[in-house]
Amino acid sequence: MKKALDASTLSLTNPVWIVGTYDPDGKPNAMAAAWGGICCSKPPCVYVSLRKATYTYGSIVQRQAYTISVPSEVHVKEADYFGIASGRDVDKFARSGLTPVKSDLVDAPYVEEFPLVLECKVVHTIELGLHTQFIGEIVGVKADEDVLGEGDQVEIGRAKPFVFDSAVRAYYGIGRLLGKGFSLGKGLT
Amino acid sequence: MKKALDASTLSLTNPVWIVGTYDPDGKPNAMAAAWGGICCSKPPCVYVSLRKATYTYGSIVQRQAYTISVPSEVHVKEADYFGIASGRDVDKFARSGLTPVKSDLVDAPYVEEFPLVLECKVVHTIELGLHTQFIGEIVGVKADEDVLGEGDQVEIGRAKPFVFDSAVRAYYGIGRLLGKGFSLGKGLT
Repeated sequence: MKKALDASTLSLTNPVWIVGTYDPDGKPNAMAAAWGGICCSKPPCVYVSLRKATYTYGSIVQRQAYTISVPSEVHVKEADYFGIASGRDVDKFARSGLTPVKSDLVDAPYVEEFPLVLECKVVHTIELGLHTQFIGEIVGVKADEDVLGEGDQVEIGRAKPFVFDSAVRAYYGIGRLLGKGFSLGKGLT
Repeated sequence: MKKALDASTLSLTNPVWIVGTYDPDGKPNAMAAAWGGICCSKPPCVYVSLRKATYTYGSIVQRQAYTISVPSEVHVKEADYFGIASGRDVDKFARSGLTPVKSDLVDAPYVEEFPLVLECKVVHTIELGLHTQFIGEIVGVKADEDVLGEGDQVEIGRAKPFVFDSAVRAYYGIGRLLGKGFSLGKGLT
């Protein structure tokens, strides 16, 4: 039996993405975002939705670029920190001990210590209300060599990303393999 | 050391969402989508990105509504099936043995057997290329009573959602709790 709940952004498996930008003075900054996802395959596009109040918002508006660095479990504490502090008040890279690296493709820095990076140029800015959606074309991807398997495939078991349950505001690791896509369901066709 | 890879939609933790719609004849249909996410907190908004070639695309354009049903691990096979077959050719609900239920809030059906449902009215349609992004305002949420904990909070350990690794096209369950958000990183502030 289903119970009707209040309308809300109830989603249990949001990504944890660190959005890298340069501020107006060229200082590297990064913030955590859980409102993000892939939104087009061709051209490859991704988005992050940010509140106007964030320091990153103004940086993206000005530079029209950002990176997404995907943290591993080992850096869950630093990822959470990037979502607590503001780049207006503090140098989050210096404070966390992580290293900003200038992308060679877009006008934004990424996090050297995180295994997977998407480099994005803003192609659409959609005002939705409290949040603004910045849709970026992914113009490059960078990955640590030690998370790459055969054919330079990023392996989830090595990259160890994690998800954010916005219902209870907690981070969860990735669990067991349930099966292959476009395969498990073939028995029903 | 990071290796530059081709630009692509490389994301390891996409949601697995079943998008429910009525076709022009009023027949309930459902498809699996991994390009989806929350994009605004107020009003609460979510999106799914679909190719124009899908049968669901035309149904959303016509009805301006859809539901998102979040499957549990126990239904990973059915979820995969919803991403393989087309509602143009077959009644996917009948074939999978799952039950369509008409939403009382939007003009679309949801999957009775799945524990969590978002009911959405389309507020923006963004053409991005191969995919069209349908941004929906979440006007209602429904959840199975047996996945609700204290204060009607949906518990991830009971709902058992799973994620889709688009790099290798495989489904993974949710793993261990890594810690609380807006808390773990406080030691760095």
